[in-house]
Amino acid sequence: MDRPTIILVSAQMGENIGTAARAMLNCGLTDLRLVGPRDGWPNVKAERAAVGAFEMMQPVRVFDTTEQACADLTYVYATSARDRKMVKPVVTARFAAGEARAKIAAGGKVGFMFGAERMGLLNDDVALADALLTVPLNPEFTSLNLAQAVLLVGYEWYQSGDATPPSQMDMNGTELATKDQVYAFFAHFERELDACGFLRNEAARPNMVRNLRNMWSRAQLTEQEVRTLHGVVKELTTLRVPRK
Amino acid sequence: MDRPTIILVSAQMGENIGTAARAMLNCGLTDLRLVGPRDGWPNVKAERAAVGAFEMMQPVRVFDTTEQACADLTYVYATSARDRKMVKPVVTARFAAGEARAKIAAGGKVGFMFGAERMGLLNDDVALADALLTVPLNPEFTSLNLAQAVLLVGYEWYQSGDATPPSQMDMNGTELATKDQVYAFFAHFERELDACGFLRNEAARPNMVRNLRNMWSRAQLTEQEVRTLHGVVKELTTLRVPRK
Repeated sequence: MDRPTIILVSAQMGENIGTAARAMLNCGLTDLRLVGPRDGWPNVKAERAAVGAFEMMQPVRVFDTTEQACADLTYVYATSARDRKMVKPVVTARFAAGEARAKIAAGGKVGFMFGAERMGLLNDDVALADALLTVPLNPEFTSLNLAQAVLLVGYEWYQSGDATPPSQMDMNGTELATKDQVYAFFAHFERELDACGFLRNEAARPNMVRNLRNMWSRAQLTEQEVRTLHGVVKELTTLRVPRK
Repeated sequence: MDRPTIILVSAQMGENIGTAARAMLNCGLTDLRLVGPRDGWPNVKAERAAVGAFEMMQPVRVFDTTEQACADLTYVYATSARDRKMVKPVVTARFAAGEARAKIAAGGKVGFMFGAERMGLLNDDVALADALLTVPLNPEFTSLNLAQAVLLVGYEWYQSGDATPPSQMDMNGTELATKDQVYAFFAHFERELDACGFLRNEAARPNMVRNLRNMWSRAQLTEQEVRTLHGVVKELTTLRVPRK
């Protein structure tokens, strides 16, 4: 088991179990455990709300007690939106995700525990966990539904192991222009700007040229775009008629 | 305007607009703009699904075109789950959040644009934006509903400006024990372990003592807990009867 377990304690509505399962699978989590689901298990509303998610997950396991659901785990986070008046580590979802990944890499088995829709976890459940997990959100409007809470915890788990470049240029199969191609366009563009008189102010010319070159540079032109721009300048200058 | 705008283009179901509004407010976002909502505006289902969120937000503005909805913005992210075959920067939600915060701090006005429930944004809408934003998630199960997509983008925005300590001990009004209090307990505990014979193996004793001290140290005992443990050891030793 190289991924954390999700434990829903006393979940009330089957639909919420289903949408929580979807949120889990969105984040690559597949081990769902239920402690005393109010409406029993299996649950038709859960199946319907999951829209196929359960088929891609491990079989859901149902337990009578939180102790049993956590029995094989080595570290358990109890999620909570409120202070529990307990002496306990309190971590953000982001910190927990990185910490959980380290614990699992070291051979641990980690679980994230969520309480019932309205009440959250009982303090006795929280006392069975190693740390409290809170999601920093607008303190004036914190209400999250169960699936959203699972989604944010799962999202952080997924990000903690994801290698997507934070920012990249989608080249769509094209190539960035080389600098000699870009500079050749600068030369063509500025020659035409000189010819039409746009750069006639000798004092201002160096700064104007630099500004225009900076503008084109920021655009990170492709080879194709440089060819297009040559064509644009050529057509504009060819068709130009003297102004009145 | 010190926070980004959310733009929902061609949202179909009022309920989704309402839950998206809730997700926005969870993350402290209050400027919602709609482009051509299918079922018109205002919308009773949206009001109902928002459960009071709209009252805490700026008035929702409705526009005929994406151009109009973005008119006063200076940087727009188009959210998309799929490749658009365009030469365009592609950023993660996390990167976008930090970048957006920097742009806003520099006086910019930033928007995050979301498309219709099934189709997402049209390519013509994407071409009006500065960058594509994608949320890295399980590629085998990516389906997010509109409110969840808004929640993840908003969540990252909120985190990028949040100062919650990633990990802290909730002391619940108690004080951590000072080291002299902890060491006094070590002495009491080890004295009793010597007395009862638990540490009788002279060769093993130093290592056993270190291990036990490490165990207590990891627990980060409070003053009250040290007092409780003194009492526990005292009671256990007082009441102990000789084993058969």
